Amino acid sequence: MYDVIVVGGGAAGLTAALYTSRQGMSTLVLTKDIGGQAILTPSIENYPGFESISGLEFAERVKEQAERFNAEFRYEEVNGIEAMDGYYVVKSALGEYECISVILAFGKTPRDLNVPGEARLVGKGVSYCAVCDAPLFKGKRVAVVGVGDPALDATLMLCRIAEKVYLISRGSALVGHEDLMGMCSSVKNVEVLLRANVLEILGDSRVKGIRVRDAAGMKEIEVDGVFVELGYVARTEWLKGLVELNGKGEIIVNKNQETSRAGIFAAGDVTDTEFKQLVISAGEGAKAGLAAYNYVQRLKGRPAVRSDWKTLLK
Amino acid sequence: MYDVIVVGGGAAGLTAALYTSRQGMSTLVLTKDIGGQAILTPSIENYPGFESISGLEFAERVKEQAERFNAEFRYEEVNGIEAMDGYYVVKSALGEYECISVILAFGKTPRDLNVPGEARLVGKGVSYCAVCDAPLFKGKRVAVVGVGDPALDATLMLCRIAEKVYLISRGSALVGHEDLMGMCSSVKNVEVLLRANVLEILGDSRVKGIRVRDAAGMKEIEVDGVFVELGYVARTEWLKGLVELNGKGEIIVNKNQETSRAGIFAAGDVTDTEFKQLVISAGEGAKAGLAAYNYVQRLKGRPAVRSDWKTLLK
Repeated sequence: MYDVIVVGGGAAGLTAALYTSRQGMSTLVLTKDIGGQAILTPSIENYPGFESISGLEFAERVKEQAERFNAEFRYEEVNGIEAMDGYYVVKSALGEYECISVILAFGKTPRDLNVPGEARLVGKGVSYCAVCDAPLFKGKRVAVVGVGDPALDATLMLCRIAEKVYLISRGSALVGHEDLMGMCSSVKNVEVLLRANVLEILGDSRVKGIRVRDAAGMKEIEVDGVFVELGYVARTEWLKGLVELNGKGEIIVNKNQETSRAGIFAAGDVTDTEFKQLVISAGEGAKAGLAAYNYVQRLKGRPAVRSDWKTLLK
Repeated sequence: MYDVIVVGGGAAGLTAALYTSRQGMSTLVLTKDIGGQAILTPSIENYPGFESISGLEFAERVKEQAERFNAEFRYEEVNGIEAMDGYYVVKSALGEYECISVILAFGKTPRDLNVPGEARLVGKGVSYCAVCDAPLFKGKRVAVVGVGDPALDATLMLCRIAEKVYLISRGSALVGHEDLMGMCSSVKNVEVLLRANVLEILGDSRVKGIRVRDAAGMKEIEVDGVFVELGYVARTEWLKGLVELNGKGEIIVNKNQETSRAGIFAAGDVTDTEFKQLVISAGEGAKAGLAAYNYVQRLKGRPAVRSDWKTLLK
């Protein structure tokens, strides 16, 4: 029986684990990967204390901090949580774990295009991260499917590396920052397709092309890569009935990172917090960690931490 | 007319200034000092990203980050804010400044002992910070006046430096962590006075002693220093009528760091946030900065930032 299980290994989850383990709680982190969305960013300039740090280095540093206090990590995707009498059972495909409290901090997931061929070709030409994967498409032909600044950003990044970039959008005009739109329209190897829907991603072992319908009708376009830039969603369907979610599927929390269910806390991008930022996720992770600590201490009949930071800095 | 004035230069205020200046807002920081309570701590081990960092180094780093984006600093203590029609006037003893939005982040202040002689002798033997000032009392006689772990901490720090330490407490028994109480009781050069009240601090240009009443009656004790360890208070009397405060005088904020008055935001230890921690203050400062940015953008009829972090990382 763990004192706390943290679900997720981004800034919020790692900081929560640092705080709970440092307070002496037995802490298990269950996560698919370490770093969350921050690892997509090679240079973060707005995390206080670092003029610039890569998301990957940040994540590795915080993980080490948490491990120094004996936080345990397992690389498993959680797919269920069952509320028992005074404790919880957290379930993954690989096992079940009991704990007194839970901190949900698994962030957001890129939104799927949801067409045939997509799932089969992920990592075989289908990517959700231009920053990560653009270098793999040097001199090749790629399509960016998406809307707004993320799609424009991906296009501008890829047009400097790929031979040709198709920017495919459902809308009747590009949307986003004016300077980005201007740049996308003026680059020679970028072709913008408006009012266009991608119906299928083609290819068996690698992406070979896409099938697109636009005003002119149906056509196939040969590409080696498809970058899906449709924003992010909170994958929280499996939490319905356990904790309250808002209309976007985000977990509703109060100022102390408490969810609607006692003993379950949430922090970072998976919550309904308005702004998604590294330092905000870290701050929320610390709050969730201390709130979980107080919850467990009270259940055990022991004193909770006082609000004054001094008691925690020993 | 500044877009935003940040009141306070601790972790919350510095991070708020980093965020507002990085978003291109004209930003003025008005503060008595840089670093806030964090500078009392030589080694912070629970700020994500640093295995250990001193509070002073942290503060200097964040100040430099904010200055790179042209945040302006003035070392003035704010004593009034007047709400005008669509803007605010922020007042110090040295001047008045106009701004569209305000971020209150001036933390907490040590609680006074509130006896004759105290105000006159601050910095002349009266101290509110054992970590800062203990080294000045090598081989001297000092009194620690206070309760709980802060008083015990100060006593244990001073007994290794000073010749003699009086620990003076109003209670009938020591209160705090058992190991700290045990150590205080067993150290030879520590004398504990219980049920004891300090009535006056004696001395003209330097502390010479204290006048104390306890069960045995009134007495004067010769000391060279008095360390007041009575916890911290939010000095917010001057904000009454402007923003809502809780029973402890803390500024009430919602999850987006909004106060009860539009255009005024608050972050860090001065708020009613339950836990006071460096990374929590920094996270709240970032939220307050982005909330102030959106407020000012809307007033100017310009687009606010979306919640997705990607738009902010350019």
